[in-house]
Amino acid sequence: MERRVSLITLGVADLKRARSFYEQLDWVGQEIEETIFIQAGGLALVLWGRDKLALDAGLTGDRSDGSTGAGGVGFSGVVLAHNVRSEAEVDAVFATAAAAGATVTKSPTQTFYGGYAGYFLDPDGHAWEIAYKPGFALAADGSITIPDFTTT
Amino acid sequence: MERRVSLITLGVADLKRARSFYEQLDWVGQEIEETIFIQAGGLALVLWGRDKLALDAGLTGDRSDGSTGAGGVGFSGVVLAHNVRSEAEVDAVFATAAAAGATVTKSPTQTFYGGYAGYFLDPDGHAWEIAYKPGFALAADGSITIPDFTTT
Repeated sequence: MERRVSLITLGVADLKRARSFYEQLDWVGQEIEETIFIQAGGLALVLWGRDKLALDAGLTGDRSDGSTGAGGVGFSGVVLAHNVRSEAEVDAVFATAAAAGATVTKSPTQTFYGGYAGYFLDPDGHAWEIAYKPGFALAADGSITIPDFTTT
Repeated sequence: MERRVSLITLGVADLKRARSFYEQLDWVGQEIEETIFIQAGGLALVLWGRDKLALDAGLTGDRSDGSTGAGGVGFSGVVLAHNVRSEAEVDAVFATAAAAGATVTKSPTQTFYGGYAGYFLDPDGHAWEIAYKPGFALAADGSITIPDFTTT
């Protein structure tokens, strides 16, 4: 697994409020399908509904209501994504992570956007998404560039 | 505020266990003062005791025990750090964030390592540290490089 983070997704209760807050800090991004992508150097900060994020990650529990998700670990509301170059690479990272003791909350599967992704938790419940996303350019150095959604 | 993330700190219950997990994924870093710094492209992933991180961030509450931190928002266990080039820049970012509605959990202050830093929460309780850290090289493009702690 290469040492790099592609996306940091923050689960939010109110997307409009979150977008306004970050825009006031000059963190301006693009909104598509109720998700905001903000390019930040070689990665992107993403704002997405917390419930949708938890559901996508296979985590139905949430510390905010006292319940717990898969593996008995609550959802922190943050997901780190690591984008790779092929479906096979997703599977390879998952095999390594599972062997290292990760809790797989969503086995790699085809995604609605034509990619392939899965989620696991580290021993402290921090969530990682490992994803192959053909629409997101991944440079040789591992940095990603958010596409212009108005033209794609 | 420039759009970039310098450090992603994950609060952990057992540093040795967390270090072992990430090393098995080939995320190898340096340990100093019970903190692990792993260079990941232009940022660093940091593993630090969750309690110490919460205390440093001015967040004594923690969702894991049902209590809440400053601003009535529990601590997610994750902190995003944004390093800047001067103390004045820390203050400027804080002024902007406060005006945008951030909850300041620790006003900028001198740090034990000779820097200057503070913490705030976004509207969803996600924690940010804004820091001037003279020991951490900050390139023109905003990327950071973890120093070699064996020689510094």
